[in-house]
Order: sequence, then C-alpha cells, then structure tokens
Amino acid sequence: MEHYVQNFSQGSQREKELLGGKGANLAEMTGLGLPVPPGFTITTKACLDYLRQEGFLEKLLPELEKHMEQLEKDMGKKFGAAADPLLVSVRSGAAISMPGMMDTILNIGLNDESVQGLASSTGDEVFALDCYRRLIQMYGEVVQGVPAYRFNHRFEKAGNKASWELIDSFKGIIEKETGNSFPQDPRKQLLGAVEAVFGSWDNRRARVYREANNIPHDLGTAVNIQAMVFGNKGEDSGTGVLFTRNPSTGEKKIYGEFLPDAQGEDVVAGTRTPLDISEMSSKFPREYGELEEIAHRLEKHYREVQDLEFTIEQGRLFILQTRRGERTAEASIKIATDMVDEGLISVEECLLRVKPTELEKILHRQLDADQDYEILGKGLPASPGAASGVVVFDADEAEKLGEKGERVILVTSETTPDDIHGVIAAQGVLTARGGMTSHAAVVARGMGKPAVCGCESIKFSREESLAWIGNFKISQGDIITINGGTGEVIKGEAILKEPELSPATIQLLKYADQHKRLGVRANADNGPDSEKALELGAQGIGLCRTEHMFMGRERMPLVRQLILSESPEEKEEALARLLPYQKKDFQEILEVMEGKPVNVRLLDPPLHEFLPQLLDLQQEIFAAEKAGDQQALIRQKELFRKTKNMDESNPMMGLRGCRLGIMLPALYRMQVEALASAAKILEDQGKELELEIMIPLVAEAKELSFLKEELREILEEKINPEGKVRYKVGTMIELPRACLTADEIAREAEFFSFGTNDLTQTAFGFSRDDAEAKFLPAYLEDGILEENPFITLDQKGVGRLMKIAVEDSRKVKPELKIGICGEHGGDPKSIAFCHSNGFDYVSCSPYRVPVARLAAAQAAIKAKSPAI
Amino acid sequence: MEHYVQNFSQGSQREKELLGGKGANLAEMTGLGLPVPPGFTITTKACLDYLRQEGFLEKLLPELEKHMEQLEKDMGKKFGAAADPLLVSVRSGAAISMPGMMDTILNIGLNDESVQGLASSTGDEVFALDCYRRLIQMYGEVVQGVPAYRFNHRFEKAGNKASWELIDSFKGIIEKETGNSFPQDPRKQLLGAVEAVFGSWDNRRARVYREANNIPHDLGTAVNIQAMVFGNKGEDSGTGVLFTRNPSTGEKKIYGEFLPDAQGEDVVAGTRTPLDISEMSSKFPREYGELEEIAHRLEKHYREVQDLEFTIEQGRLFILQTRRGERTAEASIKIATDMVDEGLISVEECLLRVKPTELEKILHRQLDADQDYEILGKGLPASPGAASGVVVFDADEAEKLGEKGERVILVTSETTPDDIHGVIAAQGVLTARGGMTSHAAVVARGMGKPAVCGCESIKFSREESLAWIGNFKISQGDIITINGGTGEVIKGEAILKEPELSPATIQLLKYADQHKRLGVRANADNGPDSEKALELGAQGIGLCRTEHMFMGRERMPLVRQLILSESPEEKEEALARLLPYQKKDFQEILEVMEGKPVNVRLLDPPLHEFLPQLLDLQQEIFAAEKAGDQQALIRQKELFRKTKNMDESNPMMGLRGCRLGIMLPALYRMQVEALASAAKILEDQGKELELEIMIPLVAEAKELSFLKEELREILEEKINPEGKVRYKVGTMIELPRACLTADEIAREAEFFSFGTNDLTQTAFGFSRDDAEAKFLPAYLEDGILEENPFITLDQKGVGRLMKIAVEDSRKVKPELKIGICGEHGGDPKSIAFCHSNGFDYVSCSPYRVPVARLAAAQAAIKAKSPAI
Repeated sequence: MEHYVQNFSQGSQREKELLGGKGANLAEMTGLGLPVPPGFTITTKACLDYLRQEGFLEKLLPELEKHMEQLEKDMGKKFGAAADPLLVSVRSGAAISMPGMMDTILNIGLNDESVQGLASSTGDEVFALDCYRRLIQMYGEVVQGVPAYRFNHRFEKAGNKASWELIDSFKGIIEKETGNSFPQDPRKQLLGAVEAVFGSWDNRRARVYREANNIPHDLGTAVNIQAMVFGNKGEDSGTGVLFTRNPSTGEKKIYGEFLPDAQGEDVVAGTRTPLDISEMSSKFPREYGELEEIAHRLEKHYREVQDLEFTIEQGRLFILQTRRGERTAEASIKIATDMVDEGLISVEECLLRVKPTELEKILHRQLDADQDYEILGKGLPASPGAASGVVVFDADEAEKLGEKGERVILVTSETTPDDIHGVIAAQGVLTARGGMTSHAAVVARGMGKPAVCGCESIKFSREESLAWIGNFKISQGDIITINGGTGEVIKGEAILKEPELSPATIQLLKYADQHKRLGVRANADNGPDSEKALELGAQGIGLCRTEHMFMGRERMPLVRQLILSESPEEKEEALARLLPYQKKDFQEILEVMEGKPVNVRLLDPPLHEFLPQLLDLQQEIFAAEKAGDQQALIRQKELFRKTKNMDESNPMMGLRGCRLGIMLPALYRMQVEALASAAKILEDQGKELELEIMIPLVAEAKELSFLKEELREILEEKINPEGKVRYKVGTMIELPRACLTADEIAREAEFFSFGTNDLTQTAFGFSRDDAEAKFLPAYLEDGILEENPFITLDQKGVGRLMKIAVEDSRKVKPELKIGICGEHGGDPKSIAFCHSNGFDYVSCSPYRVPVARLAAAQAAIKAKSPAI
Repeated sequence: MEHYVQNFSQGSQREKELLGGKGANLAEMTGLGLPVPPGFTITTKACLDYLRQEGFLEKLLPELEKHMEQLEKDMGKKFGAAADPLLVSVRSGAAISMPGMMDTILNIGLNDESVQGLASSTGDEVFALDCYRRLIQMYGEVVQGVPAYRFNHRFEKAGNKASWELIDSFKGIIEKETGNSFPQDPRKQLLGAVEAVFGSWDNRRARVYREANNIPHDLGTAVNIQAMVFGNKGEDSGTGVLFTRNPSTGEKKIYGEFLPDAQGEDVVAGTRTPLDISEMSSKFPREYGELEEIAHRLEKHYREVQDLEFTIEQGRLFILQTRRGERTAEASIKIATDMVDEGLISVEECLLRVKPTELEKILHRQLDADQDYEILGKGLPASPGAASGVVVFDADEAEKLGEKGERVILVTSETTPDDIHGVIAAQGVLTARGGMTSHAAVVARGMGKPAVCGCESIKFSREESLAWIGNFKISQGDIITINGGTGEVIKGEAILKEPELSPATIQLLKYADQHKRLGVRANADNGPDSEKALELGAQGIGLCRTEHMFMGRERMPLVRQLILSESPEEKEEALARLLPYQKKDFQEILEVMEGKPVNVRLLDPPLHEFLPQLLDLQQEIFAAEKAGDQQALIRQKELFRKTKNMDESNPMMGLRGCRLGIMLPALYRMQVEALASAAKILEDQGKELELEIMIPLVAEAKELSFLKEELREILEEKINPEGKVRYKVGTMIELPRACLTADEIAREAEFFSFGTNDLTQTAFGFSRDDAEAKFLPAYLEDGILEENPFITLDQKGVGRLMKIAVEDSRKVKPELKIGICGEHGGDPKSIAFCHSNGFDYVSCSPYRVPVARLAAAQAAIKAKSPAI
C-alpha cells in the first residue's frame, strides 16, 4: 500500500506528481546536501482522497505521527513542548506551480504555553509573541475563514506590535467570527492546517487560475511540513527570494530581494518593500557568497533558472524552496538561447522551452520615444510593455468593463490572489506597494501584461473612490498610461509604438526555421500589413481578404451601386469603376511579396454587409416623414425596399462566397481582372510572382468548376503562360460537405486552404457571434466544452472532417497544396495538428507569425521524438 | 462497327435503350406477327452522334438508303414515285416515354408530282391534297420552324379544306417565313425530318420535361421511319388510341377513343373530340374484335397495361405503336394489385410497379358532398381530384403567380408541350378542347393534378383576356374550382374533403407491410394529426414538435412573459401556467397513440421566434411618438430593447435547441414534467405507453449528459419504473459534429433520430430559407446540384456523415435505436438509403406515411434482389 507521507530525504524531483513541485524540489535539495530545514511531504494522493473523503484520516494519522516523531528527533525539539518547542510550517505545493494560489501557515506548534518556551529559548518575548500572533492570524484566515482585514485593523491599532493583549483580542476575533476558539492543541493545529491546504485546492480562486491556465482540476496539491526557521530573529536574520538569472530580462546575474529581520511572507505579500539582493553582499557577505554558490549549483543541477526562497536565522543560511523561475517572455527567450550558447541545453530543448504564445507577448507595445509625457509617478518596472486605459480601483469593476471591451488599468494598493479576474481583464496593473516578486508582478509577467508595482506615491481615498499620485488626483474613468519597462506612470493616453524583435528572439526563430517543416504565411489585405508580415518572417500571404478593399469613402458608393442597381449596365459600370482600386491594392501587396506566394480570396461576405441596417433605414424614413421631405421619403423607401429584398435569415449560410460569384459572375471577373492587371505591371518590371486565386465557401465540386470556367478566359487572356507570373486556382475548404467530398473538389482545385472558422461554425452549428454572446461562456464554465473551439481547433469533430478531407484529396491528387488560414493558423495546438496531418503551411495574422514559426518547429521536434 | 439503322423485324423490346421505347415495341410487335406497317429505326446512338456532330451523315446516308430500298421492296411502292408513291412517317421515340415532347411528321414522300400519283391510286384527290397539305404544314412547323398559327389561320380561312390553292399558299408561307422553300426531293424531306427529331431532343420544352421528371439529358432519342397507313381514307377508315385497362380507374376493360376518317394526330392533338371506343363495336365490329384480341395478347405478352395507337385503312387494321399505358396513381395501384390476383405478376413485382409518390397523389382532395355548388360547365374528368384557385389564362402567368405561392387554375383552349411550366405551377388544369388522352390530360395525370378537359362551353375572348363558360364570364383572378373526378367546373372556392384509401391501396399497403423491414412513423404535434397518422398506418410518432404547442392566443402572452421577464420568479410563473397546456396536448397525442412509441422533441427554435419583429416594434414606437402616447412609448421602447437584446445574426445556429435547455433549464423541466404528468393520467387508466424524450441540436455528448442530469429527478419522481410507462432519453442528430462524435453521444443516448433538414443546412452551409430564395433554383438549373438536397437526401455528403454516425454509434451501442424525422423521412430515395444503412424507422408527415410504407417495402425487395 502506498504511503501518504514521505520524508524529504527519501524523494527526488522526479516525483513531482506525487510530491508537488515544492516537495519534490525540497527532497531533491535535501538529497543534494543543501541546508534545507528538515521535514516531510503529505502527497497529492492524500489530497485527492481527502477531497473524495475516502478513508483519509484513518490512514493519515498514524503516518503523520510517525514522521513528526522523526522530525522531533532530527531537530532535538518536541512539538508543542513548553520549553524550546518544535515549530513547523505547512505549505501547499502542487505539481504545476500556481503562485499565490494555495495557502501557507507558519509557526504551527505555538500555544499559550509553548510561546513562553519560545520566548525563553530565544530570549526575545516580542519575537515569540509576534510568531504567535502570526500563527493565530494565519490560522484564523486560512483554516477558520476570518477576513484578513479584521486582524490587520487590530494589528495596526496596536501599532503593529505583538503583545499578550493583541493575542487575546485576535483570539476574540476568531471566537466572535466563527464561534470556535483558536486550537491550543498543536496536533489539532497541524491537522487543521493540512486539511485547509487540501481544501483550498477546490476554492474559487484556485479554480479560476487553473481554468485561465488550462491546468486540470484533478491533480491535487501536496502539503509540505517543515521545521520552522526564523528570519525575524533580529539583525543577524533575514529572508529573501532569489532568481538565478534576471526573470525580467534574462540577464545572467543573480536577481532578488532581501528583507532583514523578516519572515518570507513579508517579501511575497509585498507588505514591506524589500532591498535589492546586491545589498546583501555588504550586510551578509558570507551568506551571500554561500547563496551565490548554491544558486550556481542548483541551476546547473536543474539545467534551468531557479527561484529560491531562503532565510538566514541568526547567521545561518537555510534554503526553504527552489523551483523553476517564472520569467517574462523576453527573459524566457534570452535564457533559452543563452543556455544553448553555454552548452547547457540543445537547440531542440531551447525551442521546446519557449512557449509559442510568449513570442506574441514580447511583441509588446512600447511608448513612442518622440512624445512628451507628463509623468505622474514612478514605481518598479515589474512587467514590460506599455498600456493605456481607464483607471479602475477594483478587480470586479475591471472585469465588468473589460468584458464590455473597455481598456482598463487596474490600480490598487496591492493585488491578492482574489484579484486574478481583474488582472485578466485589465490591460495593465499599477500597485502602490510590493516589489518585483510581489503577487501583482508575478501574475502580470505570467500573462505578458505591463505592470508597475510599488509606486509608493499613490495614496488611496477609499471613501471617495479616488486616489492621488503625488499631487495629481485620479478618479475611476480617468485615462493613464503605464510603462512596465521603466516603471513610469503617465497622464492620459500615450502614443504606443509597435515592438521589434530582440537579438535572442531572432536567434530563436532562426533555430525554429531550421527545425520546422510547415510553411508559415500571413493573412494581410494591404501593403503595410504585408510588410509587417514579411518582417516577422512570413513566407507568403495565405489569405488576402478582398472584402476589405470594398470599404473606404470612395468605394462604398460604388459598392452600393453594384448591389442595389437593378440594371446590368449600372452594375457593370460600378464594377468597372471599382476595378482600379482593387488593382492598386493588389499591386501594393504583390510588390511587397515579390516572388512569394500570394493567396487572394475572391469576395466572400454577403453583399448586404455593405448596406445600411434596415432599422436605421426605417428610422430615416420616419425622419423624412416627420420633416415632410417628400423627395427623401421616396428615396429612403426605395432604398429600404431594395435592402429588405436582400435581407437574409441566416446570412452566414446565405448568398455569399462562391454562391455570390455564381449569381453575379461579373463581380469575380472584375476581381480576377484587377489581380491579373496588377500582376502584369509587376511582370513588366521583371518581377516573378506566384498568385493563388481562392474561391470561398465551396460545398460542391461543380461550384468550383463552374467558376473556373467563368474565369478561364480572363486568366488565359491576361496572364502569359511563358511569363514570370504563375497562378493556381483553388478553394477554401470551410464547409463540412467540402470535406466529405474533398476527392471530387481536389480534381478541380490546385490548392486547398482550410477556413476553420466557418468550418467550426457549421460543424458545431454555432454562429460564432451568437454563440460567444449567448452561450459559449456558460459552456466553458460548465465544462460542456473544454476549450473555445474558435480559438483552439476542435480536433475531435472539426479535425476529423479535416483529416477526411486531407486523406481523400491526396488520394486523388498527391501534390495538392494544403494550408490553413484564419485564427487557428496561429494557435500552437492547432499548428501541431496541421503538422501531423501533412499540411504544407499555416497562415495567421502578421503578429502571430513568430508564434507559428516556433509552434511549427516544436511540432516537428515532438513528432520526431514523441517522448519529449 | 455498330449500325445506325435497324429494321423492325430485327429488334426486340429489350433494345429500348438503343431503339427507344416506341421502336423497341414496334420491333417486338413485328416479331409477334401483329399487323404493324413495316419500317425501321434510326438508333439513339445516331442521335447522340448527331448532337455531337461526329461523322453522322457519312455513316447514316448509305444505311438509310439501304433500308429505304428494303422498305420499297416490302411495300411494292417507290419512295417519291410519281405513281402510287411510298409514303413514310417519321416519329421520335426515346428510351423513357416523354409524351408530347418530341415531334412527328407524316406523309413524307409527297411532292407536287407524287401527290397526283396518290390521288390517282386512291381515286381521291381531296384526300391526296389533304395529305400533302398536312406534310407541308408539319414539315414547315417542325423542320423549318414556322409558327403553327400561320398555317391554321390560312386553313381555317379555306374552310378547312385542302386544295392546290391552299398548298401554294402554304408553300408561300414557308418561303416568306424562312426564305427557303418546301423541299420537293423526298430524300431531302426524309433527312430534314430525321435531323429535326434528333435536334428536338435538346429543345427547351424537352429539357424542361426531363428536368421535371429527373430524366438524364444524355440518353438521346431514336427515330422510327414507317410506311404510312391512312385512317383518313373515308368512311371505312379511322384511327384511335386504346388502353388495355382504364388508365383513370384501373378497371379491367378496354378504354380508348376513336375518330373515323382521321389521322392519329387528330386524336392526340385534341383538335377534334373523338368517340368512345365502345362505339367502334357497332361501326367496325370485325376490326373491334381483332383489336380486343390484340390488346389481350399484348397485355399478356408484356405483363403490363398497353397504350396502343391503331389505324384502320379502308377496313384493314394496323397497329402503329404500343407502349406501357400511362395511368393515374389510383389506376396504377388497382392494376398492380389486380394483376397479382390474376396471377400475372408476383407481389414483389406489384410492389415495385407502383411509384411511392403515386400514393401521395391518390390522397387527392375531393369535393365535400354536403355543399351546394354553382356548376358553370362540364368537361371530361381527365385527372382526378379537386382543386380551387384563381383563374389564369396563360402558362407564363401561372408560373409567375405559382412561384409567389398563389394557388392557380390554368384555363386554356388546349395545352401544348410549351405550356408544361404552367401546368407544373398550377393546382389544376381546365381546357376547352381535347379528350382524355389529350396533352393536358396526360400531363396532369402524370403529375397527379386535377384536370377537366374538353369543356366545350368555354369561349375565350383573347383581346379582353377573359372567357365565358356558358353565360358566366370569368376573368383572370376570379376563383373557380374544378373536379377532375366528375369533370365539373364550379364557381368560387369549394370546400375540399380529405381523401380516403381505396381497397386496392389498402391491399397494396398490406403487401408493403409484409415486405418492409423499416418501421414507419409520423410527425404529428396534436391529436387530430396523430389520428390521421394512425389511420394511414403510422407505427408511432417519430417527431412531436413541442414548439407548435407554444402558439395560440392564450399561450403567446405566457411565452412572451417567459422570454422577456427579467426576474426568475416571473419566468417560473409563466412556465407554471404553460404547463397545463402542454400537458393537455401531450395527453391527446398519447391517448391516440396508446402503446405505440411517441417521440417528443423538447423546444427547439430560438425564443425570439415567439417575439414580434424588430421593424414592427420600431414602427409602433414611431406610431406612439406621433400619437403622443407616452405610456405606450415607454412600453414599446422597453419591448424593443428586450427584443433587440435577443436578436441574433444567424438564429439557425444560435441560442436554440439544447443550448436553450442548458441556458434556461426550467423550460425543459416544465416540458418533461408536462409529459410525465400526461403519461401518468393514461397510466392510471391502465394504458401502456412508450415515451421517447428527444433533446435537439446536440453537438457534443456533454450537452446531452448535462441535460439528462437536469431532467433525471423529474423523470425518476414522476415515472414509476414498475409501471406501464416506459421512457427513453435520446437525441436528434442534426449537426455534422454530432455525426463525427456519434460514439461519444451514443454512450449518453438511448436513441438517435436524424434531423436531416438541419444536417443538410449545416453540411452544405445552406440556410434553407435563404438558399431556396436566393440561389438554389439557379444551382438546379445550371446543373451545379442535381437535386434539391432538402427534398432528396444528399447521399454523397450528408449521407456520408450519417453513415459515419451509424457505424460509430452502433460500435459503442449495437442496440441503439436509429430513425430519421423530417422531410427526407418521406422521400423514397432517402428511405432506400435508410433501409440499406440499418435504420430502425423513418418518420414523415402523416400523408406521406403510405409513401414511406411502400418505399420501405421496395427498398427491402431491391436489397434482396439487387438485379431488379
């Protein structure tokens, strides 16, 4: 039978699943002979049994007893003894790091009696009482559910100084709030703490975090019980955290913070602003040297940047925990590529260590250097990038406005795990207190959002729901800008500049290109976007949406004439006048992408998208009626009639895509003619071009053959077969029936490009707009769907259709070029799917191109070594 | 090398594809030794070569020459000779009978010289000139494209009497209209006629007919060249058509028409009203006896009712053609079942001989006998059933109004093949001229539409676009009723009575039930429909749409309260008040269907379908504004706001079906509670019940498990597991993803019912309403789709999804009950698909139940003997 409890000296880092990350690392460090306070781990298995209530206690109690006895022996102290008692900490630690999510209780073992033993063994009654005060407070909050402010308020009133009087009043708070008293029995304290940690696995904030980070709910957490050491035993004590490299920039230099005469919670909670770790070298030179050596050893041992917690108790250094150091995306890339240079890891490992989505984060917007700002204040540069938004003082409010699409900056004294939803909704975070490793900073960096922390000049006036930054008053709704790279807080909305790739990123992407098999293209409809795409490494245009070229002041009247006129001549005239615009747009794109494939999709949306809304038109009719303007009335009524005539019940499945091309052949002819003419100009300049003409929304092969026949003459007349312009005609596969009859369609097509947005809509029968507004959020919350299928490809259903299409079409035409365009083309999981199903390329928005390049490389590496 | 030409004496009825139906039968009859005028057939192969212009003439000419020589030898006459010339007819004959579609030319071989030979050989110059007149007219119309009225007008002016003067003016008409003269060379006449017949295969009316009847365009027609015999050689001559049984009722008695001293075209064209064939027995007793004997022999030989054309030339009987006798649906059923009784055919053959769709036609509406009509006139009862509609005098106009959904009666002097589209669009046809075998009668019977023909009291006044029936004036737009069973024309709209099944039909369906494997259920939402379904043989209810129960004056306000109220209490109250209505509806249905399965689909449509239109609401706001009614204004604005809030871009794919059930669980709970309570009442009466609760629009198995969990408590509390009510919970499979994840869904479902309407919509990405209004007609016309996939299941795409679903789900749950509901459930081709894919049942509208029973039997028979 499996044990619930395991001593640090028995385990290793390989047992992360059972021991949690923290426990496994404590075991590993113990094994390495590092100065770790002794202790043991209660496993995740025990947590799951606890949550299921399956014979938990009967099994746990004897094991716990045995290990506590061992710990007493190791420490030469007795748990709960009146004199020099053994005190322990209880900390949670899940397999996957969840910073700030789970709870910690320190100083377990103290009670009215043993606190006096601690006082006499340390000769410091204030210290002993403070330890006891802390235990009661933590226990009250975590185990007994008393709101933190009740204790804080009383503590502040007592001048932040522990005393017997304070302790009595803390006990009174607990009794008043819960009807129970603070337990004096140390074993009862211990068990309560363990159960509270296990229980907290299922609390709301933990579930929210896991959902936001796609962590399964059935892992459970472990609990680590460890002998207490004290960083708050006076001037020769202290506590700190340390990163083996800079977690913000990736620079290879110890980075961290140190707080003399304090316990670790003071650093993490951000309630006191700590010193930079470099200051330790003068104040604790020996311990600093020791720390440097340990940091180096751990990094080499783990082949990974470490995030250590340490405590110095009266001149003696203890390592309390080590774990993989969380870092910014930028640091992640720099560290991975540096480690290749240092020979620590292989290129493949380097590529796998960076999350593709991190590449999107580093494309942070920055403040444009050429503008003048009014700087309101300055804090720590806690998470890079700049953001502007309206000030919001409360996480709930931030979420509410964020859901409405407003850009908000969450401004608060400090964030707690309860504020997670507000951070998710905000563009950036500004806090008055806390350092670089405070909760707000860690969370914001994890999400790639700008954050400025510890901006101490902010003073809140809760009652009036406003704040002062220095002498400047900010109220909810005011606009500010934060610069997470410098720590500046700026008045109003600033001009933000698009980001550039760092040398490390360029190196990483070079590695990626050497390993990927998939081509990566971009979706772009104009010259500037095409240039951006090229700069970010796109190998061509995978989707040029021609409908965007129908917008614009001069074009709209022509488009409306095309749609509404009832005479073929007027329609032809409108098309003839639209042609030069289309031609110019195409020419710009082709110039940028010279020599690379450019895929142009013929008009796809229903024409009534270019018309006014019926409700608006009706309103104009009433206005004209009211004003007695007979001419306007007749005109508006006519427009209303024609527009109503075009109205559809389900436009997404109506007269659009190739159906439009079949019903109004002159439209597609104009578009192809514009494209061919643009190509001709470039050809005359001696440029090579590779055009792909894409016919959208095909459900039946004959739609494609019909339109190919319609367009053949124009293509054959306009494109010289011996010239420098090559072209292919193909189709978008975006309907289930297209997948199911892909063999027939492949006979007519030279390429396929999967339009997985529409394919997802039709496979699920979900209109994306309606689903996301009306029921998809509830589906995700209730777990009916695990992921939003419009963001991550639904492999089970939609993916199966795609597999059928790829297999059937390649049987008929092995050389068929197959790609994907649309949002899924930039989603790493979906890219892995495309890799393993033999796609030729993916196409995504320009800013996602680096993401796709890395994801494609990872897919190729993982396919070669599936064990990774 | 294959021949183009084949003598009648060489072929047989098995060569229909090559010789066409008429040619094969002429060959067969020649082989049987019947008195067939000698001749030969130019094959369909020649026709296809002609249409492709592939070396046609070089090959045809020598063969034609050879066969003409043989014919001259057989007849002892010379083609084009000055004395006693050989004359031939040229008639088309395709493999599948296309009545009236192709063209005929008689008397080929006559010219200015040989007409005199004919006159002297027959001693009848008027006859000879009339033959010549007829040739010139037919040739002018068919080969040279001169409008018929030009000849008719001149002929009428000449008192319908042929003369040299008339012949000269006919020749003049041709020259004036075409610039060419009527060819004097008999071989040129012959070749021109052959080419005209071949060419007519591709004319518009032929293509329209084939499209309406699903006949492929690439069959081609054959041409039969046959020695002329003359029914217009005086009092001892005549011509007629004969059915071996009554084509209208199926009665086993010779049926037909006879016209003394006339050529066959006069009967078919309906230009003279013929005598009933029974009158022949006194006027031509010997020939009548001979005919009876031949009819009997042919029917026995072909084991099928025959439609003969015959001519008596100066006392000598010739059979010109025999073919399968077209018949009404009612006759078809009577004949098939009679032939089983007579031992002529097997039960299986009987079942295969009736087209399933014919069973729908016999469910013709009849006039209610208990009302008084004003009878305007009387014609022949040409096609059974009664219909009311607005009078329309023109086929184009009929089509125009019909497309708008108006019920029209096409009233015309006689119909021609050019009027087909008008007949298709009309509810019924009324003609002034022509008999039971006239074009209008044949076409209307084929389509199962009521027709009254030869109503001679109708006089048209073309100029004023009105007509008189006796003394009663009818104008376009007036409403009349025709009774095709009695020939009556009735003023105004009459009350029509629903039809009943004839004894022969009951017998046929009994046979069908003995042979079919598929169950047949009906879709019904109320008691009366359920009764009708039961009467027509439904074995249960396959789809009860509960949304229909939300309509109705008392219910709508409650439904709107449910939807629009923002307080949960008000919603609950609305549901509580709706419950008794639902319960009563369910109780009615369950009472009728006692013991049989009843499948209840929980609410499916989006809720905003129960709300007013936004445009209407806006109009009411403006009205209130104008009237200065502040209270109404506030109320309307509030209603507008709430309604707008529920508006969706693509409601078909929005918040409906199980999504609604998930977002508003109280709704489905109410429905299931109503069903369970209704069932309880019947159970208390000692009745057994089999309920199926169907959850619509499932895309993911978890939707189903979520809702099952929601409903479990109600079901478990309300339905006694030891009682007489059994229930299953299952789902509608109507989304591609449901098919693709059918294994997972099958684990949660006790039955599947395919909703192929929505499945077709989503597989194609066609919103049915929009597609049928905007582009589907063009798709069918252009041949992009061969059939409307909403009427006949698209087996290639949608069917493939269904196969995947059936295979995958049965792997997981072999006993899973699988059915289909919706329109395809009553479509014979789709039913065959369901049979061969292991479905348990099909469900369709009550009136389609007989169709489905027969189609299911046919599918079973064909699956056993695929050669049939």
